[in-house]
Amino acid sequence: MKPTNLNNGATEYHKNFKKWVERFQKEDLVGCCAQTDVKGDRMKRPSQQRDPDMYVRVVERKSDGIVVRGSKVHNSEASVADEIMVLPTRALLPEEKDWAVAFAVPGDWEGVKQVVSIHNLRDRQYFKRGVAPGSTDSYTIFDNCFIPWERVFLCGETIHGGTCALLFALFHRHSYSGCKPALGDLMLGTVALAAEYNGIAKASHVRDKLAEIIRVSELGYAAGFTASEMGKPEVYMPGLGFRAYGPGSYIPNSIYCNVGRCLSGEAVYREAEILCDISGGIPATFPYEGDFMNPETKDLLNKYITRNPDIHPEDAAQLWRYVGDQICSATGGIHLMGAYHGGGSPIMESIAITTQYDIESRKKLVKKIAGIKDRKVNPEDSKK
Amino acid sequence: MKPTNLNNGATEYHKNFKKWVERFQKEDLVGCCAQTDVKGDRMKRPSQQRDPDMYVRVVERKSDGIVVRGSKVHNSEASVADEIMVLPTRALLPEEKDWAVAFAVPGDWEGVKQVVSIHNLRDRQYFKRGVAPGSTDSYTIFDNCFIPWERVFLCGETIHGGTCALLFALFHRHSYSGCKPALGDLMLGTVALAAEYNGIAKASHVRDKLAEIIRVSELGYAAGFTASEMGKPEVYMPGLGFRAYGPGSYIPNSIYCNVGRCLSGEAVYREAEILCDISGGIPATFPYEGDFMNPETKDLLNKYITRNPDIHPEDAAQLWRYVGDQICSATGGIHLMGAYHGGGSPIMESIAITTQYDIESRKKLVKKIAGIKDRKVNPEDSKK
Amino acid sequence: MKPTNLNNGATEYHKNFKKWVERFQKEDLVGCCAQTDVKGDRMKRPSQQRDPDMYVRVVERKSDGIVVRGSKVHNSEASVADEIMVLPTRALLPEEKDWAVAFAVPGDWEGVKQVVSIHNLRDRQYFKRGVAPGSTDSYTIFDNCFIPWERVFLCGETIHGGTCALLFALFHRHSYSGCKPALGDLMLGTVALAAEYNGIAKASHVRDKLAEIIRVSELGYAAGFTASEMGKPEVYMPGLGFRAYGPGSYIPNSIYCNVGRCLSGEAVYREAEILCDISGGIPATFPYEGDFMNPETKDLLNKYITRNPDIHPEDAAQLWRYVGDQICSATGGIHLMGAYHGGGSPIMESIAITTQYDIESRKKLVKKIAGIKDRKVNPEDSKK
Amino acid sequence: MKPTNLNNGATEYHKNFKKWVERFQKEDLVGCCAQTDVKGDRMKRPSQQRDPDMYVRVVERKSDGIVVRGSKVHNSEASVADEIMVLPTRALLPEEKDWAVAFAVPGDWEGVKQVVSIHNLRDRQYFKRGVAPGSTDSYTIFDNCFIPWERVFLCGETIHGGTCALLFALFHRHSYSGCKPALGDLMLGTVALAAEYNGIAKASHVRDKLAEIIRVSELGYAAGFTASEMGKPEVYMPGLGFRAYGPGSYIPNSIYCNVGRCLSGEAVYREAEILCDISGGIPATFPYEGDFMNPETKDLLNKYITRNPDIHPEDAAQLWRYVGDQICSATGGIHLMGAYHGGGSPIMESIAITTQYDIESRKKLVKKIAGIKDRKVNPEDSKK
Repeated sequence: MKPTNLNNGATEYHKNFKKWVERFQKEDLVGCCAQTDVKGDRMKRPSQQRDPDMYVRVVERKSDGIVVRGSKVHNSEASVADEIMVLPTRALLPEEKDWAVAFAVPGDWEGVKQVVSIHNLRDRQYFKRGVAPGSTDSYTIFDNCFIPWERVFLCGETIHGGTCALLFALFHRHSYSGCKPALGDLMLGTVALAAEYNGIAKASHVRDKLAEIIRVSELGYAAGFTASEMGKPEVYMPGLGFRAYGPGSYIPNSIYCNVGRCLSGEAVYREAEILCDISGGIPATFPYEGDFMNPETKDLLNKYITRNPDIHPEDAAQLWRYVGDQICSATGGIHLMGAYHGGGSPIMESIAITTQYDIESRKKLVKKIAGIKDRKVNPEDSKK
Repeated sequence: MKPTNLNNGATEYHKNFKKWVERFQKEDLVGCCAQTDVKGDRMKRPSQQRDPDMYVRVVERKSDGIVVRGSKVHNSEASVADEIMVLPTRALLPEEKDWAVAFAVPGDWEGVKQVVSIHNLRDRQYFKRGVAPGSTDSYTIFDNCFIPWERVFLCGETIHGGTCALLFALFHRHSYSGCKPALGDLMLGTVALAAEYNGIAKASHVRDKLAEIIRVSELGYAAGFTASEMGKPEVYMPGLGFRAYGPGSYIPNSIYCNVGRCLSGEAVYREAEILCDISGGIPATFPYEGDFMNPETKDLLNKYITRNPDIHPEDAAQLWRYVGDQICSATGGIHLMGAYHGGGSPIMESIAITTQYDIESRKKLVKKIAGIKDRKVNPEDSKK
Repeated sequence: MKPTNLNNGATEYHKNFKKWVERFQKEDLVGCCAQTDVKGDRMKRPSQQRDPDMYVRVVERKSDGIVVRGSKVHNSEASVADEIMVLPTRALLPEEKDWAVAFAVPGDWEGVKQVVSIHNLRDRQYFKRGVAPGSTDSYTIFDNCFIPWERVFLCGETIHGGTCALLFALFHRHSYSGCKPALGDLMLGTVALAAEYNGIAKASHVRDKLAEIIRVSELGYAAGFTASEMGKPEVYMPGLGFRAYGPGSYIPNSIYCNVGRCLSGEAVYREAEILCDISGGIPATFPYEGDFMNPETKDLLNKYITRNPDIHPEDAAQLWRYVGDQICSATGGIHLMGAYHGGGSPIMESIAITTQYDIESRKKLVKKIAGIKDRKVNPEDSKK
Repeated sequence: MKPTNLNNGATEYHKNFKKWVERFQKEDLVGCCAQTDVKGDRMKRPSQQRDPDMYVRVVERKSDGIVVRGSKVHNSEASVADEIMVLPTRALLPEEKDWAVAFAVPGDWEGVKQVVSIHNLRDRQYFKRGVAPGSTDSYTIFDNCFIPWERVFLCGETIHGGTCALLFALFHRHSYSGCKPALGDLMLGTVALAAEYNGIAKASHVRDKLAEIIRVSELGYAAGFTASEMGKPEVYMPGLGFRAYGPGSYIPNSIYCNVGRCLSGEAVYREAEILCDISGGIPATFPYEGDFMNPETKDLLNKYITRNPDIHPEDAAQLWRYVGDQICSATGGIHLMGAYHGGGSPIMESIAITTQYDIESRKKLVKKIAGIKDRKVNPEDSKK
């Protein structure tokens, strides 16, 4: 079937969007995508919610723009974004026009209220980290927020709801196949150092656990690599039953994006377990920085934390503090949840995979081999 | 073989210990056991360490007592203990007399330096917890600490090193089969509430995950129950090759203690994963307390965190804060490590299980069924 | 609530059943229980099936007895049973009277047609097994089979359908906690011998895999042990909402029966994997018996199958043949399926566990700790 | 470092090999590679074995050729091969010259004795399969077998032992990433049909299990795809510390070959479990063909095996027979072992992965982030 281009020119969206993108690129802005709605009752559609604002929606259409209400959540770095791009979070029914809305606003636009949580490690006083990352997430609330038409990119065309949701998820999951292997590199290095500093680097169970981490990282990377190589300038929309052309840019293969993200995302608690396993209890009960500065305890602690005699106790201490940052800190715990759910929870990928995969052709293959002939059933037979 | 009582009356240990226990009971003291040594190079025995203090040892024997040096670690609640009981952490060779030492001292005894880490959740300002638990762990350092003879319960009798280590581990692992199912109750209740508050309580994958948590809790409990019922007033020491009578109290069955602790201990990161899975990303990006008090955001947040319309948003907020306490806090992360390693890491139980289990009788059984006759090999055959 | 005895004397069932049991015991008969119906469309109840015979049912009631039609399946050893006891397979609605039927017949009763599959290993010609077990399963078809009243133990009392189904499953699952650990003994012995004969008994991954098998066996046994110890002469029927007294005999605790069977049943393919892992490819490509008798190849084969030089090649060959019997034979594969599904598939236990477990009390506990107060929701709030 | 070409022209091997290949291609022969030695005592090297023939070796060097002794095993389709290529199975020490031997012989060459096992399903009498595959494996025994020089491709150059072993394994593991996904297609189709024929295709646990099979297949395929794309005309030999040029053909990336084969190989018993789970016990107790031809039972069986009323019982029967072929037959069990170990057991891939992966660079990265400075240790410090 010939791919269909639904942007058929009847609206100004594409023209406005291109203008917006050009400015975005020219001014080298920082952006963020706000897609996930709060969703309210998960068993109900947007139009069935007791409170219709559970999905961001248009509450008023004016000559110069629209008024929107609702809240997006889990918006990473919205707090520092120049522009927030808002998209529908799911496929929509024809009668759900009010929820088919996409637009972009600056992060400090009137009517936008960001409730921000900040994820950074508490600063160290004496024994500094080499790098001290941090991040933020926002509830981005649109409190009857006015959006001028030139910033509106979708308003009422429900058919695009699913495409927006699917494409955002797809690219997010694809990016995960680059991002997660990098985090896997850090996990691998950390576990390898923990084993070395604990003097157990040669134990065979350590080798198996290092291999397990590498396997997840590299299979996730291979999935992303393959998704790129097999990318096409079009996408198949299972729900809609047609292929849609994109704007010319390539769209990665969905199956490989999904199997990769699923493997990597589901692995994070297991990886935390491995780090816990190899570290032993040390990071959980590690003395405070001050105790290592206190003249009365300093030398004693450096003496007693020494395991591998080739490792300086100050380096060992830095490693255990770093491991503590990863699995014994609020930020570490938040990071695990982010890695598990970011880009779509594992169950969403199971749904995506089984919906999009050509299972029928495999059934046909088995029928041929097994000698199954799809004989016709006579309904009378079973009533005899 | 008749069990052997090694406390054959040649020392004052037992008499002194009984006196100590009587006072302990009469004064209703709080105690703690300090067993785990810092261990230094894990591939080497106490006597092979570059620094001999890596295991607590006797550095001087005097007429009125002994002087000890070394540090015990991961000593839970040593910071509030009236009495700290110190035991050897492993089996010892005959030449490792200095490390065969057991004694009890008050927590603030001269020469004892505790370096304490405190695990408590940061206090909430507005939305209080119902219960706010906390705990502590100590590095208990013996810095040339003098112990009078009446507080010394072992000094040089290396044969008891393994028994002390094994029995402490055994009772610790047994207690885990009561403690961990209780924590499993909390995990089960939390996941069930998270599913309910998210409006997905009837999803079949939720049922399977609840069943998984119950299975771990109840199998762990059953293992402890069976270990108790099969307990005997004696214990078999695999390393020593004999059975030793205890003081008359019952000793739980070791195999059941070990299989139970192993199952429960290994499950904790998987349980954290389940809680993360069912909660979704909410706890990771949940707004701060103050945002729920701020007049500008309060009503908006209560509106937008509403999922299951039958749950009051303040209750929902309390649940997500509680989930955050469990898996997005330093204390939660430390707790996971404690639950994983406490009483002995999974690998220690694998060793205990395979060392103590009668595998030979199972091999014999298979030989009979398979028709294997233990034919004698003629070494010449393979040289032909 | 006072337990209810539903056998209230209005029928002759109990009297007839006691008479039947007395004869059964006196004549020392061999019995078998035929419970599992063929079930037809699994999404539909007995009364909704296109063909009503998908569950065994009464097609005619006469003065001297009843006529039944339908087929039971997976009836182990029905082929050699003196008496086959037939029970309903599930809870029934009041209108499903025809399917509420229990009775006993000899295995060769008129109108009973058994279609039997036989699971035995092909006999060996030269290198005999020590023990050569076999088993059978039947489709037990009741082809308008007449059952005299004295052999009918239930006919129309739908309220007992669920009790019969649940109690049969319960005792079956309980017996599994004795049976499966015994099979686990054989698996343990086999894996231990395979490691020994392959000369890798001391590898640490072998130890971990032996520990894994022991863990499953002993946790399953502990579950059964605890279920016995906590047994009561009554049973709680979740669907019916009441406790029913049994005839005086003790009924094992349902939760422990289910968690034990679920763990053990789900483990069987993993155990086969371990045996495959430790054996290497040897059993899959092992030469035929005759090749070991053929003068041209006999000595060469004995030479080249030698691994551990302390093991006689004939003994080694017997082991690899035995391993082949377990995981490279039709009987071995059938046995795995039986062990996986016997007594109820894992999903049935998940349902049983979550239906019967007191999850509410755990939610209450968490509410108390989390500071959740079950505040009343004002439905108007969310409509603002 | 510049790659090294070790075939430096001092021998006739390459010339002879090219001649052999040319004939092989021209005559369109069927080949097989015999690599795996019987290995004897696994803890010992070739030169340490009590019986030196445990690895194929040169026992005599003559003017016109060499005489070899030993046995290769698990040689798939050697029984029908025109030419068998023999390679060393492992890295060799300089003193292990006799085991550094590669050559090719016809399968029926004098002095070659093949002991063959045949893996085919027993033929069906009435209900034929659509396709009925079979395979063979040989013990290929070289019983003082003479090989003329023009068929010898390596004789004494121990440095090539590891390269031969590694390259054969590498290509075998790479081919697995094409072969195993195809088998995964069959497994997927079979499980999907079993769910459909059982009338449970819409259950959510079925969806999750289908997604699991797809995930393994497509991640395995992606690993192979990426290994191809990243292939180079050279290979790094970790043991030798240099890169070797190949003959010009591309060599797939080793890490991706290994992570892919490892994932796919380890999954096979889990996949068998899924098929068992979704099929229920039906295939294990399915009546014999003849029972479906017997006029007395035929109609009854067709009636009672009906589940999904849209599926003809003869088709259903064919499916359950096919499932039985997969997991309740000798051939099915042998196939599982082959899929698990073929190309190298999972543990071999763990070793390959961790040996070849650049773990050091990841440790360095973590050191930078954690603030670890590789401070020099003063050995005197720990002796204070």
